[in-house]
This record gives sequence, C-alpha cells and structure tokens, in this order.
Amino acid sequence: MPSLRAHVYRVAAQGPDDTSGVEALFAAGLAAKNVVAILGKTEGNGCVNDFSRGYATRSFETLFRQHGADGVSLVMSGGTEGALSPHWTVFAREVVDAPAERALAIGVARTPSLPAQHLGRREQVLLVAEAVRVDAGIDDPSDVHFVQIKCPLLTLSRISAAEAEGKTLATRDTLKSMGLSRGASALGVAVALGEVDGGTLRDTDICYSHELFSHRASASAGVELTDHEIIVLGMSDRWSGPLAIDHAVMRDAVDVAAVREAYERLPANSRLAAVLAKAEPDPTGKIRGKRHTMLDDSDISGTRHARAFVGGVLAGLFGITDLYVSGGAEHQGPPGGGPVAIIVEKEH
Amino acid sequence: MPSLRAHVYRVAAQGPDDTSGVEALFAAGLAAKNVVAILGKTEGNGCVNDFSRGYATRSFETLFRQHGADGVSLVMSGGTEGALSPHWTVFAREVVDAPAERALAIGVARTPSLPAQHLGRREQVLLVAEAVRVDAGIDDPSDVHFVQIKCPLLTLSRISAAEAEGKTLATRDTLKSMGLSRGASALGVAVALGEVDGGTLRDTDICYSHELFSHRASASAGVELTDHEIIVLGMSDRWSGPLAIDHAVMRDAVDVAAVREAYERLPANSRLAAVLAKAEPDPTGKIRGKRHTMLDDSDISGTRHARAFVGGVLAGLFGITDLYVSGGAEHQGPPGGGPVAIIVEKEH
Amino acid sequence: MPSLRAHVYRVAAQGPDDTSGVEALFAAGLAAKNVVAILGKTEGNGCVNDFSRGYATRSFETLFRQHGADGVSLVMSGGTEGALSPHWTVFAREVVDAPAERALAIGVARTPSLPAQHLGRREQVLLVAEAVRVDAGIDDPSDVHFVQIKCPLLTLSRISAAEAEGKTLATRDTLKSMGLSRGASALGVAVALGEVDGGTLRDTDICYSHELFSHRASASAGVELTDHEIIVLGMSDRWSGPLAIDHAVMRDAVDVAAVREAYERLPANSRLAAVLAKAEPDPTGKIRGKRHTMLDDSDISGTRHARAFVGGVLAGLFGITDLYVSGGAEHQGPPGGGPVAIIVEKEH
Amino acid sequence: MPSLRAHVYRVAAQGPDDTSGVEALFAAGLAAKNVVAILGKTEGNGCVNDFSRGYATRSFETLFRQHGADGVSLVMSGGTEGALSPHWTVFAREVVDAPAERALAIGVARTPSLPAQHLGRREQVLLVAEAVRVDAGIDDPSDVHFVQIKCPLLTLSRISAAEAEGKTLATRDTLKSMGLSRGASALGVAVALGEVDGGTLRDTDICYSHELFSHRASASAGVELTDHEIIVLGMSDRWSGPLAIDHAVMRDAVDVAAVREAYERLPANSRLAAVLAKAEPDPTGKIRGKRHTMLDDSDISGTRHARAFVGGVLAGLFGITDLYVSGGAEHQGPPGGGPVAIIVEKEH
Repeated sequence: MPSLRAHVYRVAAQGPDDTSGVEALFAAGLAAKNVVAILGKTEGNGCVNDFSRGYATRSFETLFRQHGADGVSLVMSGGTEGALSPHWTVFAREVVDAPAERALAIGVARTPSLPAQHLGRREQVLLVAEAVRVDAGIDDPSDVHFVQIKCPLLTLSRISAAEAEGKTLATRDTLKSMGLSRGASALGVAVALGEVDGGTLRDTDICYSHELFSHRASASAGVELTDHEIIVLGMSDRWSGPLAIDHAVMRDAVDVAAVREAYERLPANSRLAAVLAKAEPDPTGKIRGKRHTMLDDSDISGTRHARAFVGGVLAGLFGITDLYVSGGAEHQGPPGGGPVAIIVEKEH
Repeated sequence: MPSLRAHVYRVAAQGPDDTSGVEALFAAGLAAKNVVAILGKTEGNGCVNDFSRGYATRSFETLFRQHGADGVSLVMSGGTEGALSPHWTVFAREVVDAPAERALAIGVARTPSLPAQHLGRREQVLLVAEAVRVDAGIDDPSDVHFVQIKCPLLTLSRISAAEAEGKTLATRDTLKSMGLSRGASALGVAVALGEVDGGTLRDTDICYSHELFSHRASASAGVELTDHEIIVLGMSDRWSGPLAIDHAVMRDAVDVAAVREAYERLPANSRLAAVLAKAEPDPTGKIRGKRHTMLDDSDISGTRHARAFVGGVLAGLFGITDLYVSGGAEHQGPPGGGPVAIIVEKEH
Repeated sequence: MPSLRAHVYRVAAQGPDDTSGVEALFAAGLAAKNVVAILGKTEGNGCVNDFSRGYATRSFETLFRQHGADGVSLVMSGGTEGALSPHWTVFAREVVDAPAERALAIGVARTPSLPAQHLGRREQVLLVAEAVRVDAGIDDPSDVHFVQIKCPLLTLSRISAAEAEGKTLATRDTLKSMGLSRGASALGVAVALGEVDGGTLRDTDICYSHELFSHRASASAGVELTDHEIIVLGMSDRWSGPLAIDHAVMRDAVDVAAVREAYERLPANSRLAAVLAKAEPDPTGKIRGKRHTMLDDSDISGTRHARAFVGGVLAGLFGITDLYVSGGAEHQGPPGGGPVAIIVEKEH
Repeated sequence: MPSLRAHVYRVAAQGPDDTSGVEALFAAGLAAKNVVAILGKTEGNGCVNDFSRGYATRSFETLFRQHGADGVSLVMSGGTEGALSPHWTVFAREVVDAPAERALAIGVARTPSLPAQHLGRREQVLLVAEAVRVDAGIDDPSDVHFVQIKCPLLTLSRISAAEAEGKTLATRDTLKSMGLSRGASALGVAVALGEVDGGTLRDTDICYSHELFSHRASASAGVELTDHEIIVLGMSDRWSGPLAIDHAVMRDAVDVAAVREAYERLPANSRLAAVLAKAEPDPTGKIRGKRHTMLDDSDISGTRHARAFVGGVLAGLFGITDLYVSGGAEHQGPPGGGPVAIIVEKEH
C-alpha cells in the first residue's frame, strides 16, 4: 500500500556557491533524484544585478549533474537583508511503503520559454495558469497553500533583441520588468486557483488592479531563466508522513496576528520545518496611517527594505532567522501585505 | 503642593524640515519653553553623510527661536529603514499644582565641547559620566530607565584640523568614529549608573571589551555638534501625571520575549506613548547560530540593516511603526542586542 | 554710458549649509541684491530623498534674508560622485558705467506653480517655454548658450493629494517623475529656442522621442519647489566685462573632442570661471559599441554613475573638480550625451 | 631560432558567466593551454560581497577544464562603475619560430596560502616579494612595467576560524581587510623591484606610511582565494612580436598629463591593446585643493567612486570604456594616484 511522502530540509549556506550542506544530506542518505526543488535565499540585492542567484543556480546544477539527477527546480530568491540568514530549503519526495494519510504534498511544473514581449502581459498570466494545473496529488484547490514561481525578467540585451525584431515591450526598465513578471505570474496562480477570473483580466490590470490577487502565490524574478519554474505545496489525502502546511495572508507589513493564527491551526507538538513569505513596500506609502520611506529611498530598493522589515516581524514570532522572505509581492496578497506558508513536522 | 509633570508627544514628520506637527502642539496649548527635548527619527542613512539630521536640527532651532525658547535638546537619529516612520518624540515638563506621585521624570544635561583627539577615548567616557549625574529628580540610579545621548563624530575636516595641530586621533575613518563616539558615550552612562567601573576602564576597552555595557544607554552620533546632549528618563516619586516608563535589554536581535516582559510590567489599561530602542548587527556574524550578512554587505551599512530588522521585530509586538529605533549599539546592551525603553500613559 | 555687467564666482562648500564662502564675497564687496542665482552642487544622492538640496536652499534663503535680498534663484543639483567637489557658482549682475561690448549676459525667470497632473506632460513644456522667453538682453536666440532650469518632482504625498482630487498623473514612480520633469522642462527650452516645434509635440514624446532635444538646456529636479526657476546664459552686445561663454554638445559620455573645440573657440589667455554640464546613462546600454552597466545596477542610480564618469572625463580636460555636472539629461543633448557650457574670464 | 611571443585580447563580457568571447578565440585558433592569465572587470561592487568575481572565476575554471588547460591565473576585479565596460583581457604566450626582439613579456607566479593572521602584515609583504622574483625573461627590473596581484581578504568565517585558533588578526573589519591585503601585496612588489627596502619595513607601515609605494604594482582582493596570483608584464629582448608596454604613475585622480606622456613614448602607428590602471580616493579628502566626498559617503564605497571617476579621466584620453580600472590603490602609486600600464600593438 504505497504512498508518496514529502521531505523538507532547511540547510545553512556560507555563500551562493556553498552546496556542502546539501552534499551532507546526500551523504546521510537523501537520494539526489528524489529532490524536486530547492528554494534558496541568497545574499545578493535581489534586484537586476544580483549574480548570487545565478551563481547558486550554477553551483547546484553542477552538484546535481555529479549525482546523476536532473530536472530539479532551483528557485533562488536574492536578498537576506536585516538578520535574514542565507539558506537552502530542500524539497524532496519519494514513494514509501506506508498507508496514505493527510500530509504535505509537493507538485512541480515548468512552462515553455516566455517571449520578451509577453512579459508582464495577459499571455504570461495564461501561460502560468495552465502550468499550475499540475497533478500534485491535490484534488481540491482549497488544499493548495503555496505556489512558488520563479519567473524571468528583462535585461537590456533581451530588450534590445526583442526591439530589433520589432516587438513592443511592456516596459524598457529592467527593475520594473521584475515587478511586472512577478505580478503576471501571481495572477496566473490566482486564475488557476479560481481566485481571479482569467476571462476578464486585461494587460492593464497587471501591477495596477491591486484588488486582484492570490492568497497563495509567491513569485521571484531571476535573470538566469526565460521560462517559469513552479512548485505547488498543499495537503493531500494521498500522501503520508509527519509534515503539514497551512498559510496566512498578512494584511500589511505588521500583521503578525494573521500569521500567529495560521501557526496555531497547525498541529501542536510540532517542529518548525520552513516559513515561506512574501513582502513588499505598501504602495500607499503608509502602514496603519504612518508614512514609510521605502518608496522614496533612492539608495536602497524598496524590496530590500520590505524583506528586512518583514523578516524582523516574522523572526520575532518564530524565533528563527532562516526564513524564506522574498521581496516583490505584486498580486501576491493584498497591497503591502503578502502570503505566508508555514510547514511543520509533527513530533512523535 | 506643586510637582513636576512630564509630557510625551509622538508627532508625524513629512520630511526633515516638517515642524508643522510640533507647531500644531504649540497652537493647541503646549508652551514652547516647556519643551526639554525632541528625539527625532529622520529619513537619511544614519551614517556620516546624513544631512537629514542637521536639516531637522536647523528647522527646529528656527522654530524654537521664533517661539522664544532656547536650550531645547534636539537629538536627531537618522535612518527609517524598513517600515519605520519618520517622527518626532517631544518631551516636555512643567510645574503643576498636583501632589507628587510616582511618575515619569525627565532630566537634561550638556557637556563641554569634545576635542577631536578625545573622541573614542577614556576622556570622552568621563566627560559624559560627569554630565549624566544630572539632577532629574531621580534619587535612585535604579529608577533610571533610559539615557539618550547625542554625541559628535569625526569628519575629514575635523580630522585634518586636529592633525594640523599635531594631535593623534583614535581613528581616521569617519564612519568608524561614529561607533567609537557612541561606545564611549554609552560607557559614560554605564560609569554614571554604576554598571561599569570608571577607574579601571582603559582606552582599549572602547568598542572592544563588549562585556562592558550599559542596560540603559542610547547614543546617536551626529555631524552637527561637537559636544554631547543628554536626556535622562526614569521614574520619580517627586513627579506626577499618568506617564510611566520601564525598560528591557534585548539579548539579541530577535529577543522579543524580554521586551514583552517589560511591557507587561507597566500598568494595564494604558496607551503606548513611545518606544525607544537601540539595534546593531551581531558582531559575531551570527544570531542564534545562524549567519547574518549585515557585516559583509558593502552596499548597505550594517546599522541600516539592523534598524530595519529590529524595527520589524518591535513593530510586530507593538503594532506601530513610529518607533525610535536607533542604530549603532556599542556598549548599549550586550553585543548584538540593545536596550528598549517603553513609555505608557495610564488611561482613566 | 551705462551697461550691465555679469559676475561669476566659484565658491567651495564644506557642506550643504556652508554659506561662509558667499558671506566672504559679501564681506569683500559683492552686494547681495546683485546676486541673481546660485547654482549649487550639493553632496546628496541627487535623487528623490536628497535632502542636501533643500538644506542648502534653506541655508541660502536665511542668508539672503539677513542681507535684505530676495528673489535669488537657488538651483541646487545633488550629487558630487567621483571626485566632483561640492561648490556654489554665484551669478551676479550690476549696472556699471562702462560702454557696452560683447560679454556674458544673465537672465532669470520663474514660472507659476505646476499642478502635479501637468508634470511630464505638454502643459509643463509650454509653461517653461513661455517663461524662457525672458528679456536677458540677448536679442538673438543663437546667442543663448545655456538655460538652467530647476523643476519640481512628484513625492508620494503630492501623488496622493492629486489622486485624492481625481487627477491622473503621468507616473506614480517618484524617481521616474524626476526624469519626466527634467525632460519636459528641457523640451520647453527647445521650443523657446526654436530647436523643437511646440505645435506638434505630444505628451508621448516626453522621455520617449529622444531625437527631440535642446543643445543648451540643463534641468535639475528638486523636492523643494513646485514651480520652475530659470536662468538664461548667453552673449550680448549690450553687456560689458571680461566674461565670455560658449557651449558644446557631447555626443556621448566620452566625447571630449566636442568640449575641447568649444573651449578653443573662447578667448585665449583667459581663466576658467565655470563649467556647466549634463550627463546621463546612454539609454542604449552601450557607449561606442561597448556595454555599460549603469542601467542594470540596482545599488546605485544610473544618474550617479553618469555624473561620476562624465565628471572624470571633464576633469581630465579642464584639470579642476569643482565642475557643475548634473545628472539626468532627458532631451538635454542627444541620448547618452549632453550640453556643456564653458565660461571664461579674459585676463588683462 | 625560437622565441617567446605574447598575445593580448580584449573581449566583451555580457555577464560574469559569459565566457563566449573567449570560446570564440579558441574556435579561431587560440590554444587554451597557451593562456597564462585573464584579467577580468566584472560588474559587482568590487567590495566584500561581490560574487561576480567568484562566479566569473568558476565559469572560466569550468571552461578551461573542458579545454584541458589548468593553472591559468584568473584575476577578477569587481566594479564597472560609470561607463566602464565589463570585459576580459586575455594574456597568452607561445613559442614561435622567430628571432627575439624587444617585445612584451609575460610572467606568472603563485604564492603558498596565506594564514589569516599574516594578512596585512610583514609576512604577507615578504611572501609576495619572493614570488614576484619569477623568471619572466625580464632581466632588468627597470623593464618591469606592471605587476598584477590577486590577493585574499578576510571574511567573518575566516576571522572566526583564526580567532578560534587563538590568532590575533590585523583587522576584524572585512572591508578593511581588502585594503590591508592590497597594501601588503603592493609593498611586496615594491620590495621585489627595489623600490622599498624590505629589511626596515614594519607591520605598522602597511596602509599607513603612504610615502612607501610601488610605481608598477596593482593588487585586487577577492573572496575566492587564500593565496596570491601574480602576473608580471614588461619588455624583454628575448621575446618577439608586435606588442609593447609602458607605464605612467598618476600623481592624483586628474593627472591625465602623466598618462599622455607614457602613451606618447610608445610606438606611433599602433593600436591600443589594453589599459590597466589603479584608482583610489585621495586620503587627504582633497584633490588639487578641492574637497571630494568619496570618503564621507556611507551609501557608496569610496573605491566605487574612484573607479567611476578615473575611468572617466582615462576614457576621455583613450576614447574607449573597456579599461581595466581597479579600485583600492594602497601603496600602488602615491596616495590618491596610481599606476597605469598601456599596451599597444604596432601596426604594419
């Protein structure tokens, strides 16, 4: 009576190329071919010229190639501002000889390459929505608690290439392209999960109609890919094992109450396995009526401010700093807020 | 049967030169001559070239001059990273016709000008210690909960001037001079409060012997002064009114438990009046065993990272973002931690 | 037989509030009421949150008020990247008892306040164009060599206020608003000087149709004003004195040849009085076929890179570092290039 | 009658991992085993957390391994501020069947690993000095025109490891360690070339006694190595081919005259092959009597300012932007100045 079983490991990183912690997992028995995804927090600026992501990706590609595994989804999110700690969260799954019970399930998908002129537009939304409808053994969309997407961005060379072909792009601003790509990807999740109606969505809604959002999407843009890598996390009655997941939506950057409630819905007597969250500067320029300066600061990108601060809010609650807090939460939760997924391991 | 009574106002700032909120207090009846100090969070980088502090100082000097008041201590701390909100905390005191009871007391002092070659050395410690022994109506040193000091820093022109006179300085690095000045000032408080023995303290202990620290000092360096402005906050049986203060010492950047305990020691049914805190990157490069990258980041100063993060930790607890979180906590609390003072107003 | 005579002084600044060098000019005989403009290079980031400009402006306002002068145009351009040196260039004029001859002439103008919704649009272009047609004693538009404009920008509070009134803005991005404002102002100069046809210009040309530009416009955006301050520099047969001006248009950031030619057109045996230049990152991402990274750098704004580099190019030619190099050259010279004005004083 | 012949190629880089230009050289006939060194300008911040250097190094290691070559010295200098263009300069040498004549010669060396506690101290100077005395076929020290050294830096983990072993380090500040390492390495060159007396040199001279310097040293610090990679460039009567080298020492950041003179000493009718230069903020805070703000800027490291500016000075002279301008010139030329090497290829 076999079932699928998920594993989640949180591993410290000494630098973008430090794969030693994952190698140690392999040495301790984890089969490289069972790894489906790694979500990394790397220590670059998380913006356009963040090479820590590509460097980490290349380092893990080399490692997995050496271990004969391929197709592992590598989602590197740059930015460990404040006291956030660089780390890798390794997601693995295997068939075990155990009865199915309600447990964490992990699904993975990948889209075709996105033409530059589709970035930040309806075409990107629909491309992602189709891919999210992956079979993760999760039958009910309400059992999906987190969908992580790694999406592409525009660089000057991609812009030039597209324009040389006569294409018109959604933006010529490389930093802005990251936001548009994250926003369109998140709306793709929202469409797939029935949170937003894909039929009526227009290009101009993307990064503009902030009332349209997913409660469970998390998107990171990276220079190193032109397609999308998608990881779906949820609960399934067809999986087994001690891991469980739930999620909250922070209403604003200080909404610790919502996260605490989700944490309390999870089994007591359990160990924290991973916290996955999105953060962004409140676009109104205020939080609970008080002005913030993240969007007026020309020295530090607003996404860096937001990660540092929300990292602090969550670290105060959970008591750990190796949290996956990713910046840029366009259409990922309400404006200025964001989704937070919590994975715990029940103790015996 | 007259007594002294303290007032504390938290006022929003639209920019470093926005004194309109304080003008509104004057219009509503606050006498300018009763103001003893303003602690401002301004939106510069909080480091050497932060002109938001001097700009705010000049703006308030002009305002108070217009209202015929002088000698107000203006302590501007730069840096509203994360979601921290630029604001002024106004401290005032007046003689009222009310019986003395246990209440918040405010004392103020100012040192002579500090010669550049004394900065970061034993002479600075002793200069500050002497000034802290001010009569704030606080008889017992254990009733002191927060001592805020604005201290000078070295600029290239001050360094050149001193060296032209044949003086040898503790450092020629302007950013480093801010840390040395804060550290020596904090040790001055520690000596004054009996936390550290001033007799055995050496130059080389400053910013080095981290086990020596004050539980109640907070120092900010600013380019706009060459002396020290000192504000002492505590409880006194000779004052009156609804305000009360207590303090905590955060052991590390995520130590929300210590702050919650101090908050719970204060009267229930009270409104939060002000939170004053210090933050710094943990000098070991780790927090609870996990690496942070604040000290390896050459794009953003570690003090900026620390303010953003600890701002988030405290905002998650208190639910507000107009917190006075000041960076650079040398000898202010244990390494990587820092003191936090909480002022509340009892409701009737 | 009286004539007008211009004076130009280049004065070092120790900080944004250091007006001592100008006070020294007053002490040496310069009448404050004869000063028409000060062009300052201040040491902030030159972007949205650069308070060094407002601080300098306030400091000079105070100084001129003390000396009974008003209406002085204070144009503060932030950013002394590289080895650029903070300084003030003081422009003064007076009636002298001397025959008119061909010499530097200075005109000044100011527009009405610009509604936020006009910023970056045709209305701003036309507002500026009308104001530039000021009587500077310059009869022939071809005698105009430099038009300096200080223009407004959008802050979050201005955006919110305008949107609360139901207005739609050209942008909601504060940093981008600086570029739009500079671009529209420069096109206003181009329209006034007959370089661009104001009749056919559309909103969508602004910061887009880069082939439209002025050879003689220089615009800086500042948070501290909502109108435009305009200074026109040129040659006039109705003025007198030893000062002369000419200008070049740098084709790209390394086009030192064009500047050298303009310099050589000016009288030999003369002393350099001021160099005024604009710089911007080449929008193609390349200079003479080689990639630059200014527009992909999320840590340092492209305008800062451009000022530092072009500052170096010009300092190598002129041998001085107190050059007025201002960033953001939208429609000010060709894309990636910019106008440079050179003022010299003939020696006797 | 065989001789050695040097080749120098300047190759554009689209990013830190873009080795395609060098692959194209291989495809066009360059033998990978003949490559002795690559000097790269990569687009990180050039400071502690610049991963573009390590990423480039790893990319080239992979490439050379694929082509069966090893031992290639990879010197990656981070920072393409201003309009500097990311690129690789490839140095190769081969035995040719041609008579020896006076031509560019290239030598290479590598030191043993440097213990952390020797960094920035006399031990590092002597370790480098010994290695520089490599046989490059250059008999006369006066024929040496440029010695490029890649040296290690301290990271927090290296500091912790050394301190755990009871070692005392020259500094605990990671950014400062880069300067100390560059300074000690440059003094090593100076000792080897007879410019400084190694016998009397003390620890305290390093990064302090600025009057001691090499006219021909260039050092870059990188996180990815713990030893030193050394490349010696000079003229030799025992080599052959059309390449020639000379050098200048810039007295300060605007000293273009010295560079022009060196350029004019080289053969006319030649094509520019490479320009290699060092730049640093003038430690006095002034250049030709005018204040600069590089050392007071807490948002941008002084080394970044210096590269951007000196890049502009040299680009104005040479008309190209793919210049190797490397920051941090401690003991490399006089304070605030730096050595510049020019390599040209005589045309037939």
